[in-house]
Formats: sequence, structure tokens, C-alpha cells
Amino acid sequence: MNVTAPIALRINPDIDPETHPYISTGLRKHKFGIPIENALEYYRVAKGLENIELIGVHKHIGSQITKITPFVDALQRILVLIESLKAEGINLRYLDIGGGLGIQYKDESPPHPKELARKLLPLLRGQDITIIVEPGRSIAGNAGILLTKVLYLKKGEDREFVIVDAGMNDLMRPTLYDAYHHILPVRKNRRRMIVADIVGPVCESGDFLAREREINSVQHGDCLAVMSAGAYGFSMSSNYNSRPRPAEVLVRDGEHYIIRKRETYRDLVRGEIIPDFLDK
Amino acid sequence: MNVTAPIALRINPDIDPETHPYISTGLRKHKFGIPIENALEYYRVAKGLENIELIGVHKHIGSQITKITPFVDALQRILVLIESLKAEGINLRYLDIGGGLGIQYKDESPPHPKELARKLLPLLRGQDITIIVEPGRSIAGNAGILLTKVLYLKKGEDREFVIVDAGMNDLMRPTLYDAYHHILPVRKNRRRMIVADIVGPVCESGDFLAREREINSVQHGDCLAVMSAGAYGFSMSSNYNSRPRPAEVLVRDGEHYIIRKRETYRDLVRGEIIPDFLDK
Repeated sequence: MNVTAPIALRINPDIDPETHPYISTGLRKHKFGIPIENALEYYRVAKGLENIELIGVHKHIGSQITKITPFVDALQRILVLIESLKAEGINLRYLDIGGGLGIQYKDESPPHPKELARKLLPLLRGQDITIIVEPGRSIAGNAGILLTKVLYLKKGEDREFVIVDAGMNDLMRPTLYDAYHHILPVRKNRRRMIVADIVGPVCESGDFLAREREINSVQHGDCLAVMSAGAYGFSMSSNYNSRPRPAEVLVRDGEHYIIRKRETYRDLVRGEIIPDFLDK
Repeated sequence: MNVTAPIALRINPDIDPETHPYISTGLRKHKFGIPIENALEYYRVAKGLENIELIGVHKHIGSQITKITPFVDALQRILVLIESLKAEGINLRYLDIGGGLGIQYKDESPPHPKELARKLLPLLRGQDITIIVEPGRSIAGNAGILLTKVLYLKKGEDREFVIVDAGMNDLMRPTLYDAYHHILPVRKNRRRMIVADIVGPVCESGDFLAREREINSVQHGDCLAVMSAGAYGFSMSSNYNSRPRPAEVLVRDGEHYIIRKRETYRDLVRGEIIPDFLDK
């Protein structure tokens, strides 16, 4: 059995105020990892187990992090651990430095991956270890948009509602993390600005894509682009309210390719079996 | 075109403190329905539209309601509306009284559906109208449980973790609404009680089924029953973290029937198409 020890580093014991508690990881109360102060001890124990081969260490400090310092601090501490292990005859082959680099959803200014690499590479130079990285969101997040059509407008007593055909089942982040996603008209226009809740057709008050959002006034049939939907978008989607999931379309050099078919109602019941005593 | 007017009644303008904001519906800030004070006016407008036939009214006051009074109040107000409409020559054929009857998740004591019916039926007697009801949760909620196996135990610094093989993708309610679900060992035992977070294997800090929960100490391989999972359970499930959804099993008179097959990894990619230029 090969084992890498997952370590959730508590670089900063306080939650970054910009990070939703559900996407912070390295806190005492979280399920992830082991505290780095105990890591050496655990490696020693594992080294004594004859069917275990220690091959690496895996750190992960959180999600949607927009500063470089936490990554540098964490890597430095892991490198100290690796040196201590070496001194005890434990030579690791893999160092997984995890993910967590943030993207711009609204007004964040995360470092470019290159900037991060420029700070981390000097620390890694000379290390005889294979580096593994997990740059999910920073690659996919802003590469994907969710297109949705305006079904109708509704003037509530308290606010306006733009009801669109995408809902929380398609993009869970606003509901789950109160996350912000830019929403833009697909065709630029000069209509007046309105403030509206942009909501889906799902039977939940939590079914919104944006609340009290300033957008160009829209009309029935308009197409809207929900930006930054490439990460934790389709992957978290569900069939809630018996809603077939949308098609996924890849665009490359002005050409488009359907890379996942739109689901049908048949897909929703594909696995279902009606027992004999009910099948009359 | 047949139209029933959806009405979200604001019986009580304050949120019931026991109701999560995401499952309350009849507030000014919510997308649902039209205020009952405006209903008569809207029906009048609709009556003047030659392609519209007015056939009914639909009310819904919220979800997981554990008292009878709101249902009675709402029905009384709707009946006044129906009378006012009659007086104007608008005779409705359908009255959808919606859903919302709560179930016992923890220590709620919702009325039995019979008790509710006993209070509502006298009001409906003599009404020449077809009644539609939407008793979803109160039928299905406590008819379903989610079975999950203990993967391992982990002693965090701050608390214990019971890591099970079901996660937030299987049952979203704890994460989404901070909802309480009883969790019981499938085999009764007399082990000591522990306080633990019962968490899934999904890569989110929000991936929990219960937090700081007192349960019988568990061991690797134990089977746990997450109770009251029959409503908003499978229907809200997703494939997040590339997790195939579990099988659904119907139990009747001691016999069991698989009514939905366990998903496979093949199911997860069924609709995917690799464009030619990538398919080498």
C-alpha cells in the first residue's frame, strides 16, 4: 500500500473573511487532513508498518484563495517537514501542493498562476521530488459560462424578478455559498439599468442566481450569460425538480462542439425499475 | 390557454423562526405567487383576455409547516377570494391548496394529515370545486432512509469525525438548510455515546450529514441509517465529485425491490462526446 499523508495546513487559524466557511478547509473544526505539528509522529508510526510504503505528502490549504503568501508559507512549512523526514530516513517521492488558487468572480484580484509559480519555484529548486498540483478552478472557472433564457419578468412588491430557465439545480454556487457570478446580456444593449433578483424556475426560495443585482433591463426571450461557471458548475448540478441537465458546448476558434448531450426525461428515469406488483 | 393564478399567501409576514429562509415562500422578497390583495384585480384583467380561460386558484404558504392555523387562515382567505370572484361571474373549477405540511425530523410535532383534513374539510363542504393537494414531504419524507457505511473514524483536534460513504451529493439538506436528520445505527448496540461530526467523503467542508451529534460509538464497516430522507433526498442528489448515485430500494412486507439501479461510472459520462480534434 502506498500512502501519502494528507495535511490540511492551518496557516491562518482565522477564516479569511472573504472565504465562505464551506470552502475553507484548514481549520481545527474541519474534517480534512492532519495538523502539520503531528505529521512527523504519524510518519514515524507509518514507517513501522510493514505493508505501508511512504511515498509522499499532500497539502491543501483551502479554496478560492486570492493571495500568494498563504501558498508560500504552506510550502515552506511542508519543505521543513520533508527535510525532517529525510533526516529520519524517510525519503518522499511526491509532493502534492494542492490547489486553491482563486479566480475573479467579482472584484477579487487573484495572482496569475505565473506569479504564483514564480514565488513557489525557487523554493522547489533542487528538491528531488515529483510535484503534483491541483489547479482546478483557476483553469476551468472562467473558461465556462452558463447560458440561460429569460422566461418572464415579474414585478414583486418589494423588488423585480427576472425569471430565467436555469436554476439552482444547474448552478448551485449562489444558493450554496451565496456566491457571486457576473450575469451579462449576451447581446450588448443600452437599455436602462434595473435592480432585480435573477431567479430560476425551481420550487425553492433559495433558487436564485443573483439577488438585488444591477443589470440591463431584459425582455422575455433574452439570453443571459452567467459568468465564471466553469468550476463547481455542471459538476455540482442535479436533476432536482425533474430538470434534465443542459448540454455542454465547447467553443474553439469560433467553432462549437456539443461535448455533452442535453439530458432528456428518459435519462431521468433510465435506472428505474417498477416492481412486478406495481406494474399493471 | 387555461390559467390558475398562483398565490403565495403572506399569512404571517415574519419568518417562522423554525423555518430556514430557503424553505419559506410567502414573503414579500420571494419570487413566488402574487399577493392576495391584488388577486381580484389580476383575475379581472385576465378575464378580459380572449385567449385565457380562468379555471382555478393555487395557493402555497411554505414548507415544513408544523401548525394547523396557517393552513386554516390561508384557506379562509382563498375562499373569500373565490366568493368575490363568483360575484363577478368568475367561477373557478380548481382550488389547489398546495402543500407544506411538515414532518418530524427532530422534535417537531406536526399535526397528522388527518387532523389537518379535519380542520380544512368543514370549510370546503358545499364548495363546488375540485380540490388539489400537494402533500409531498408528509407522504414521502419519513418513508425513506439513506443507508451509509462507516469508512473510518478520525480523531480531530477539536472533535471526532465519523467518515461515511454518503455525502452532500446524496443528501443535500444538512449542507443546504443546516437541516437535522436523525442518524441511527442499523444494528442496535450498547456502545458508549460519543459526540461526532458525521461527514462524507466529498471535497467540501460543507460535506456533513450531522455536526456535533451524539451517537453510539461506531466502527469501520458499521451501517448507519440517516432518517427522514424520503423527501428532498434523492431528488436533490447530484454526481458531484464524480460520485455515482446510490440504488433506491423499496421495502414492502419484508421483501425488498431495487427500484432504481445504482449508477455506474459509465452513467456519469453517458452523454459526453469527444470532439474529433481531441479524439486521437
